[in-house]
Amino acid sequence: MTASSHAVGISKVSNGQRSTQSDSVAVEEPLEIRLVFSTPEGRATRSISITMRTPGSDHELAAGFLFGESIVHEASNISSIELCGPPAPDSGNHNVVRVELAPDVEVDLGRLQRHFYTTSSCGVCGKTSLDALRVIGVEPLGENSASFVAATLTGIPDKLRAAQITFDETGGLHAAAAFDSAGNLLVTMEDVGRHNAVDKVIGSLFLQGRLPGAELGLMVSGRASFELTQKALVAGMPLLAAVSAPSSLAVQLANEFDLTLVGFLRGETFNIYSGQHRITE
Amino acid sequence: MTASSHAVGISKVSNGQRSTQSDSVAVEEPLEIRLVFSTPEGRATRSISITMRTPGSDHELAAGFLFGESIVHEASNISSIELCGPPAPDSGNHNVVRVELAPDVEVDLGRLQRHFYTTSSCGVCGKTSLDALRVIGVEPLGENSASFVAATLTGIPDKLRAAQITFDETGGLHAAAAFDSAGNLLVTMEDVGRHNAVDKVIGSLFLQGRLPGAELGLMVSGRASFELTQKALVAGMPLLAAVSAPSSLAVQLANEFDLTLVGFLRGETFNIYSGQHRITE
Repeated sequence: MTASSHAVGISKVSNGQRSTQSDSVAVEEPLEIRLVFSTPEGRATRSISITMRTPGSDHELAAGFLFGESIVHEASNISSIELCGPPAPDSGNHNVVRVELAPDVEVDLGRLQRHFYTTSSCGVCGKTSLDALRVIGVEPLGENSASFVAATLTGIPDKLRAAQITFDETGGLHAAAAFDSAGNLLVTMEDVGRHNAVDKVIGSLFLQGRLPGAELGLMVSGRASFELTQKALVAGMPLLAAVSAPSSLAVQLANEFDLTLVGFLRGETFNIYSGQHRITE
Repeated sequence: MTASSHAVGISKVSNGQRSTQSDSVAVEEPLEIRLVFSTPEGRATRSISITMRTPGSDHELAAGFLFGESIVHEASNISSIELCGPPAPDSGNHNVVRVELAPDVEVDLGRLQRHFYTTSSCGVCGKTSLDALRVIGVEPLGENSASFVAATLTGIPDKLRAAQITFDETGGLHAAAAFDSAGNLLVTMEDVGRHNAVDKVIGSLFLQGRLPGAELGLMVSGRASFELTQKALVAGMPLLAAVSAPSSLAVQLANEFDLTLVGFLRGETFNIYSGQHRITE
């Protein structure tokens, strides 16, 4: 039993028979991210996000969130990350993470007020979501990014599943991993929230100074949405592979920025929705 | 092919062989919800939410969102709902929905600035998420709510799956349904977003004047998170059933408010995490 799962008493009903059992559920608790940064009037502290997450790797989650929001761009932008606040009464977890930025980092306060800036941009000002990504400076991936052998890709889901300790206990967590073209998993993370699992992976790479990840692929246990595709692009990772289906906007975004988008990666089979030039036999 | 799916060209890789095929992906586009309401200075219009959703049932999605946020409480609080804005260049969908409230409806502007008020409340002001629900007036479910026969429950997933037209095409959508104790599905909805599918179901019941839904259960295709449990409670529905696992906070919330929470509802088997008195053999 890890700290990311929790035992509960249940009634199991099977073919009309009821029995009392113990079950393990994935822990879900709120995490508040507080940012400390410089303003012309001095240092300021602002609560910028609250997300329901599985406790663990909270530093990475906070860093990945800030990177994905283009608030920080390299590890040296962050002076310190620490958990604070009183422990939650039931679990004892600290559910506030305080991120102090380096004194010279400029923060766009307008952006802080729109958590999901790209989706907020479209509609409000008439720009499309894709235009919004161009505006923040994401460039189409170049030819210098890694290629991946098909047989290496089909080996990733089993490796990810093997690393999913809490999923095995609870059946209730999403997983994400970064892998290289030799098929090695560099980072694997689990969370009740799909976006959180990806933020934790990207935050870990960010804190290690490994971004942009031009040599890395990103694997997710579920579906590939617009937002996950956007996170891969912002991290400079040229391949996003999902166990399940991509959405229309994920495909459109991947095409626009030449990201390799793989879906239904199961057994020896997968679909390439964009950027097939990076997959070799 | 429905408007909620979209054909794309793919490369299918199977045991090292690559072939060009056509695939159907679930449509994902942003929806902006604009609220028109009375203020002491006259009528005001405010953009209050942007969500990535699958087009279709946008009126229900907007109504369900506003109800879940406790901005509206009964159907007569809404004067009109209409899609507006220019059609999206690629799809032709209208991605702005304008909801006009009745003149006498009071809107808490502070709440509008915190989309997910319950999760925003915890941490920020020290209240727990559960306390926050009590504050907005959600009461524990009473003994007058419906009971459900186990054999009726185990029949729901197949009925839901049969109603998932776009999932069959794309493999990429979540589904939610409201059902009665006789096992009839009253409303089924699909969306790329889990919360959206549930908002559409609850919004449909709301617009029909069928809330609180003391006689109804809510079924979701994926996992049961805190937020989905909260949505069932706000709608007064006494049972939430999920195909997959619940989270720790979903279980805690269900116990606190005497909601019947069922997980892993598959075949003839399911787990009861809370409120087993409502399940009869």
